[in-house]
Amino acid sequence: MPNAKAYSAASATSPLASTTIARRDPTADDVAIEILFCGICHSDLHQVRDEWKDAMPTVYPCVPGHEIVGRVTKVGPAVKKFKVGDLAAVGCMVDSDGTCPECKAGQEQFCPNFTLTYNFPDKHLGGVTYGGYSDSIVVKEHFVLRVPANLDLAGTAPLLCAGITTYSPLRHWGVTKGKKVGVVGLGGLGHMGVKFAHALGAHTVVFTTSPSKKEDALRLGADEVVLSKDANEMAKHAGSFDFILDAVAAQHDINVYINMLARDGNITMVGAPDKPLPIGVFGLLFRRRSFSGSLIGGIAETQEMLDFCSEHNIVADVEVIPIQKVNEAYERLVKSDVKYRFSIDMASLKAE
Amino acid sequence: MPNAKAYSAASATSPLASTTIARRDPTADDVAIEILFCGICHSDLHQVRDEWKDAMPTVYPCVPGHEIVGRVTKVGPAVKKFKVGDLAAVGCMVDSDGTCPECKAGQEQFCPNFTLTYNFPDKHLGGVTYGGYSDSIVVKEHFVLRVPANLDLAGTAPLLCAGITTYSPLRHWGVTKGKKVGVVGLGGLGHMGVKFAHALGAHTVVFTTSPSKKEDALRLGADEVVLSKDANEMAKHAGSFDFILDAVAAQHDINVYINMLARDGNITMVGAPDKPLPIGVFGLLFRRRSFSGSLIGGIAETQEMLDFCSEHNIVADVEVIPIQKVNEAYERLVKSDVKYRFSIDMASLKAE
Repeated sequence: MPNAKAYSAASATSPLASTTIARRDPTADDVAIEILFCGICHSDLHQVRDEWKDAMPTVYPCVPGHEIVGRVTKVGPAVKKFKVGDLAAVGCMVDSDGTCPECKAGQEQFCPNFTLTYNFPDKHLGGVTYGGYSDSIVVKEHFVLRVPANLDLAGTAPLLCAGITTYSPLRHWGVTKGKKVGVVGLGGLGHMGVKFAHALGAHTVVFTTSPSKKEDALRLGADEVVLSKDANEMAKHAGSFDFILDAVAAQHDINVYINMLARDGNITMVGAPDKPLPIGVFGLLFRRRSFSGSLIGGIAETQEMLDFCSEHNIVADVEVIPIQKVNEAYERLVKSDVKYRFSIDMASLKAE
Repeated sequence: MPNAKAYSAASATSPLASTTIARRDPTADDVAIEILFCGICHSDLHQVRDEWKDAMPTVYPCVPGHEIVGRVTKVGPAVKKFKVGDLAAVGCMVDSDGTCPECKAGQEQFCPNFTLTYNFPDKHLGGVTYGGYSDSIVVKEHFVLRVPANLDLAGTAPLLCAGITTYSPLRHWGVTKGKKVGVVGLGGLGHMGVKFAHALGAHTVVFTTSPSKKEDALRLGADEVVLSKDANEMAKHAGSFDFILDAVAAQHDINVYINMLARDGNITMVGAPDKPLPIGVFGLLFRRRSFSGSLIGGIAETQEMLDFCSEHNIVADVEVIPIQKVNEAYERLVKSDVKYRFSIDMASLKAE
């Protein structure tokens, strides 16, 4: 069994540190990948610090990372779509049952028996799955994505979670040219939402509390920026949005945004505040509005998203860091001090 | 100007009592109707008692009633669809601007300039509109519905509000044969939801807190009845519903029902609790569920609903009362002591 270099946390309060983990030899339908870049998702931090104790307790050591881009180093004999030397990517899932209605519908993210990329029971080696803060990974072909040649690899890594998480609801709720789309929360997810809404041809409006974000929002593709604390500005847009993507994980008043929706408008949360949000029902009754959630996306749609990014030359705005700076990056992430995603250059792991 | 007999409330604390009101002479596109039956909607009670003070303060005297069935007594020269002697019905609206995008889409219920059937500025006579607790009404043809000949008239009256309020979201969210539909709250609205869901061919499940309602739910068309307080029974249905109609206006935990929804399932509120409902976002993220509201329906859809009722022989289950018992009926309504809607026989008004 090949060993891999990785960064892992030994407990909820330990920093991530260099370690060695086992990876399996590729089985017939596996692809072995040398990891070149791995994005840092806020979920990594939640999992490492055991902040989802009740729903998904962390098993230590924990190797996070589910925004993985790399190069194929070995393929099993049944692998058809990849050959050694190809670029490849892996997102939040590495397996599912393949037989349930969700899998058959291409919605593996709702499979009751899926395997997440880290901290999930590892069917091959026992223990739990280890994620992308590592120099290599071995993944079943169905869960490996093709990476278009024209995309910057560091900026491509975050597409595997932040990208698909925002692309999927925009597509599901019919965002196209002629629609008016709002994005709430200009962070790792939100900045991708702006890029996608703009590329899909929608009139894209960013809601923000900070005037300082205006220029950047316009640069990312927003047609307008609305200061959500300015009641007059907000009133001008009341009842006018076809779709709003809400990427704020902190507690906030979503009724303000529900009232921005036109008839049959939808607001979808991709962030998840840990406490229930109070929703005024009258705001939903009038104009037949709806409020929903969305969770990453299926494998086929993830590939569609990567191909869309290739066509529109979209990647995430990233700050590339060496793995040795990961703990510092986590501290900055807590303070939202990153524009807009950290991407770890895994070449740095060779020095360990 | 012709006078009409009516029952009105003089203040928020006065009982409804016999009075005389003015109705206009029919203009070119008006239909004059002798009212035969008028349903009692919970909204009537809220309005009469000024319980919506903040949103829609009541102007007294107040003549409520927006579930109106009657016979045409006179038509204006431009009226095309009705002649004297025809059956006719009127629901919650008697006018709208006809030019806004909502009206053009046949969604007059979302027109920013609509006129509700009672307690709304009356463009013709000044003051406010007077509803159906009266022996006659004069309404613009566009807002008058045809009543199929085979329907019982007392049971037809509630279709104009309770009927369309439940039919519209079932249709909007794609309820058909093969779908699994839940109904929460077996009252005036809920019992219509059960009849419609059943007639649309869906596998229809009633959620109730009272075992005593089981038999009646089955009689109304439910395929199954689930006691919502029985955690085991509830668990069996988790994640399995395509659509749930929630007709409970009181505060209740809607997250329980959100967790009953399958992937892409929707729960729509047609009741409106006055305080915000706390919604757990995780329940929406997983399975991409949505939560929405719906408000009566458009005029064309109301006609479609009446024709659907004719085809499937559906009317509301009503207790017919004389107008003299309306105050007593209100007291019983507060206690949900009616199966399932009161319908006032307006012949009783002749005795006043």
